[in-house]
Amino acid sequence: MDSIKNRRTIRKYTEQDIPADLLDSLLEESFRASTMGNMQLYSVVVTRDPEMKAKLAPAHFNQPMVTSAPVVLTFCADYNRFSLWCRQRKAEPGYDNFMSFINAASDTLLVTQNFCTLAEASGLGICYLGTTIYDPARIIQILNLPKLVMPVATITVGYPDEHPDQPDRLPLRAIVHEETYKDYTPAMIDDIYAYKEALPENKHFVEINHTETLAQIFTDIRYTKSDNESMSANLIEVIKKQGF
Amino acid sequence: MDSIKNRRTIRKYTEQDIPADLLDSLLEESFRASTMGNMQLYSVVVTRDPEMKAKLAPAHFNQPMVTSAPVVLTFCADYNRFSLWCRQRKAEPGYDNFMSFINAASDTLLVTQNFCTLAEASGLGICYLGTTIYDPARIIQILNLPKLVMPVATITVGYPDEHPDQPDRLPLRAIVHEETYKDYTPAMIDDIYAYKEALPENKHFVEINHTETLAQIFTDIRYTKSDNESMSANLIEVIKKQGF
Repeated sequence: MDSIKNRRTIRKYTEQDIPADLLDSLLEESFRASTMGNMQLYSVVVTRDPEMKAKLAPAHFNQPMVTSAPVVLTFCADYNRFSLWCRQRKAEPGYDNFMSFINAASDTLLVTQNFCTLAEASGLGICYLGTTIYDPARIIQILNLPKLVMPVATITVGYPDEHPDQPDRLPLRAIVHEETYKDYTPAMIDDIYAYKEALPENKHFVEINHTETLAQIFTDIRYTKSDNESMSANLIEVIKKQGF
Repeated sequence: MDSIKNRRTIRKYTEQDIPADLLDSLLEESFRASTMGNMQLYSVVVTRDPEMKAKLAPAHFNQPMVTSAPVVLTFCADYNRFSLWCRQRKAEPGYDNFMSFINAASDTLLVTQNFCTLAEASGLGICYLGTTIYDPARIIQILNLPKLVMPVATITVGYPDEHPDQPDRLPLRAIVHEETYKDYTPAMIDDIYAYKEALPENKHFVEINHTETLAQIFTDIRYTKSDNESMSANLIEVIKKQGF
């Protein structure tokens, strides 16, 4: 499927809006993804209003796509709707727990990826914002998410106004294991990461960051232990606060 | 995209095997999904050996697809490979925490869905096994998963030997919220679930399960509070045991 094979994340969009009909049909088709027990444990909040985008932006570290994309979609794990239905049907829901959060988040991420595939096949470009779970309390407040609803992914979407190079990927042998997981020897690690490390853009990246290795950019600058630890504590707290 | 629009889960497969080349190319293309910082925080374990399938089956409640599908894929959140690379490059990884598990699991689920889409577009049928996180310790042991590797999704895949009806989905208005989340009134819940409740197969389902409502099948039989609670405790324990 060429639209998957040739995809690249798009962070710059033209002024062209996304017709409501098109967005609706992409979302509706995306909901065909596998879902646990056909419970459809997700909701999607559509942001088009510039004021709402401006409010959301800080939760996403002010990445410019949030305000410049015609549409921002927040995909939420949602056990609220299903639990309301249960209560209205003399059934006592038992979904206020971690397992149910993971089940709903899984449903949600399958739909998120399905939406991205469909959007890209229609000529749209998307950017996946991993920041959604960095400061979820702020998003919850802005989007008015009730208990048992938790944002897990944000997608900015619009018509592409750039055509960036396709980023590298690790070779297949780095990811796929036959029958059992074969742990990596030092030689395998060298082999697997050689291409990535030799890329001019990554060598440049190391230079401008004044690190000794590419890996240090990840551990010391981009995804540090202390950030991860404070965000872990926060994320667990918010998941619990949302009633899971 | 018709293969998404018309998809249905396939649980019965013909005897036809999946060529290794085809499987490799589907997996390779699936890795084009968005990934946090291009870290590709996932591994895939391919099970073709009937003995391995027989070992995995109990972890999936002996669902027959596990032993009857030509290929079983276990998609794992993986911070092991990346951390090994860091250590080998004088970088101290800080990914032994909950946030890193969620980031890796998100990467993994996007790839899982991408694989399913690609497989279905190639004429294969898939079944997503939500059971992967019910008894993950058993899967970890069978597949020999080291620390910082956690199974999050299992897909059985093969050529379809059935053409089931497409299951219902909730109407778009049930899932999509404009600008902010509008919580559901009792009338909205009645409206949204009316179609599902009126389906003959669901009425039959209520009858044979001797419940009063369809919702009670979920709360009292399929996804009970006590099961969810014990599986939550177990899942948290295993995630921690795997070093996150």
